[in-house]
Amino acid sequence: MSEIQLTPRDRSDLRLLAWGAYAPLDAFTGEADHRSIVERMRVTSGELWPFPIAPALDDETAKGIKGASSVDLRDPEGTLVGRVVEPELYRTEPEADVVPLFGTDDPNHPGVAAVLEAGPWRLGGRVATDHDFALPAPFDHYPATPSAVKAIIAEHGWRTTVFFQTRNPIHRAHEYLTKCALETVDGLVIHPLVGETKDDDIPADVRLRCYETLLDAYYPKRRTLLALFAAPMRYAGPREAVFHALVRHNFGATHFIVGRDHAGVGDYYGTYEAQDLLVSLGPAELGVTPVPFEHTFFCLTCDSMGSAKTCPHDPEVHVHLSGTKVRELLAAGELPPPEFSRPEVAAILKEAYTS
Amino acid sequence: MSEIQLTPRDRSDLRLLAWGAYAPLDAFTGEADHRSIVERMRVTSGELWPFPIAPALDDETAKGIKGASSVDLRDPEGTLVGRVVEPELYRTEPEADVVPLFGTDDPNHPGVAAVLEAGPWRLGGRVATDHDFALPAPFDHYPATPSAVKAIIAEHGWRTTVFFQTRNPIHRAHEYLTKCALETVDGLVIHPLVGETKDDDIPADVRLRCYETLLDAYYPKRRTLLALFAAPMRYAGPREAVFHALVRHNFGATHFIVGRDHAGVGDYYGTYEAQDLLVSLGPAELGVTPVPFEHTFFCLTCDSMGSAKTCPHDPEVHVHLSGTKVRELLAAGELPPPEFSRPEVAAILKEAYTS
Repeated sequence: MSEIQLTPRDRSDLRLLAWGAYAPLDAFTGEADHRSIVERMRVTSGELWPFPIAPALDDETAKGIKGASSVDLRDPEGTLVGRVVEPELYRTEPEADVVPLFGTDDPNHPGVAAVLEAGPWRLGGRVATDHDFALPAPFDHYPATPSAVKAIIAEHGWRTTVFFQTRNPIHRAHEYLTKCALETVDGLVIHPLVGETKDDDIPADVRLRCYETLLDAYYPKRRTLLALFAAPMRYAGPREAVFHALVRHNFGATHFIVGRDHAGVGDYYGTYEAQDLLVSLGPAELGVTPVPFEHTFFCLTCDSMGSAKTCPHDPEVHVHLSGTKVRELLAAGELPPPEFSRPEVAAILKEAYTS
Repeated sequence: MSEIQLTPRDRSDLRLLAWGAYAPLDAFTGEADHRSIVERMRVTSGELWPFPIAPALDDETAKGIKGASSVDLRDPEGTLVGRVVEPELYRTEPEADVVPLFGTDDPNHPGVAAVLEAGPWRLGGRVATDHDFALPAPFDHYPATPSAVKAIIAEHGWRTTVFFQTRNPIHRAHEYLTKCALETVDGLVIHPLVGETKDDDIPADVRLRCYETLLDAYYPKRRTLLALFAAPMRYAGPREAVFHALVRHNFGATHFIVGRDHAGVGDYYGTYEAQDLLVSLGPAELGVTPVPFEHTFFCLTCDSMGSAKTCPHDPEVHVHLSGTKVRELLAAGELPPPEFSRPEVAAILKEAYTS
């Protein structure tokens, strides 16, 4: 019996693939699609898609399943979760592939590192599965599948819905931009990524308590939905922004917020590279209208939130704290100012940092 | 020599027509276009256009130019400003036309009243003119032609520009929505209507001082432009919103803000009728993306601006003042609270109301 064990990241991808969130993909990518995606960010049929989605295998594992007519898939805990029928095992060149995918082959880039470490073989093919990919607690309390999210959007009767991708707690800067975006559409989905991230990102369960508290106190319930995005981060900047936008279309989005340095890490990408790419692709290719935002802040002279686009005042009257500064404050048991973070959210973070 | 004298409204329309602001129109509308516009809001060639644009004449005036091979046009001061060549004089049915145009034949509606009072004849035809239609002081200090506005947009390098139509001073509610809209585009044009309005609207010169002061203190210069829209108001609600959007496309807009009750008067139109019409027509028909906004206000609990879409709190914590209340305060020499109006703007209005 041929089988492989999925990594946590592979499992996250399989879950979203099984849920239909990765359309146009309906299978692990085969060799032709792999090449087409890497080289031109499109599947062979021409539709936009930025990442090959197929378990990567090392030489030994690949050897073990070579010639198999089907390959069983076990999750990281050993549970059988599906079977690749008509498997297509093929060898790739990870060192070459990472350059178009990530714009760099620097192994310090966490996305590049993940590809380079994962082995050169890929297992393509359709996956037969009747496994329940529901997320574990505490994530099981939130809608996470495209069908669940689309059903709630339909229930609300939202004709236009903007999605906000985040992997951080929402402070006032991001509250402002989500509300700015919501002002001109019918509904807002706060769609935090809860799949695999870098170790120094704030844990998803803490973030969820922050989101719940913020939404409860400062957002109208009939206009806002908290739903989960169970994908892993690749930190691929512009390509990941395309991924984030395309997948949100499958979740029912009509609009997608794209910030500065979207899905980037370090200084591998230009500040506006992700925004410019989404805007140039546009709604016809992406299935959603990209909604680009600048860095936002509270201005003491305006006495309101704004950005360099909407506030003419000197940076010294802008309330801005670096992530490092916020972590220092919280670790010391102090709260950032209310112009930076809602006190209710800051209290949860303080507790998480000091406990 | 056949000639007619234009009303101030006719002159405003001719000015914008001569400037190219009324494309697809390039002439006073003839009878076929008149009927097509009234009945289906399109010129005979199929392009969207909401109002017939042609001087209306009474029986006596029409009789005086009947059969003329050309008709000279004099402005309200008697200056010769152009000549209609190949004039097409035709009789219309104002009582019937106002119903599709305004959704009512109530003579208390100021737009309906203007049509009913103006006489049943119309003078169509191309206008030959080399008149300088520049606006008089103090309006001559601001860009007012499509070419002037488009040149400034090009100079700034704005790829996307949102236009804000207003005939009122800008208080914080409208500052908020213009800035919300600006956050996701490159530039903002504050485009106040300075043509003919109802007598109880605030005079344009006072409003201009308010806009200048507000922009100077609270908007970045490289993202904002104050330009004039010299069209008269018809208060036709949804049709006027279409007019406002189409004409802004000719001024270089890519986006157009449409509020609740846009260009309405009294309660002749549903709150969302103008927004719904623009959204259903969409950018392909309008040439601009409509950006719809709700009623906005300062919320004392959020400590920020918002709307019923983005703020969950009770109306009693919302700073809202009726127009009547604001006028009462200003006339009594008092300023509305800073959450309602910037003190710099309120001071100008107070002076205008008390002097």
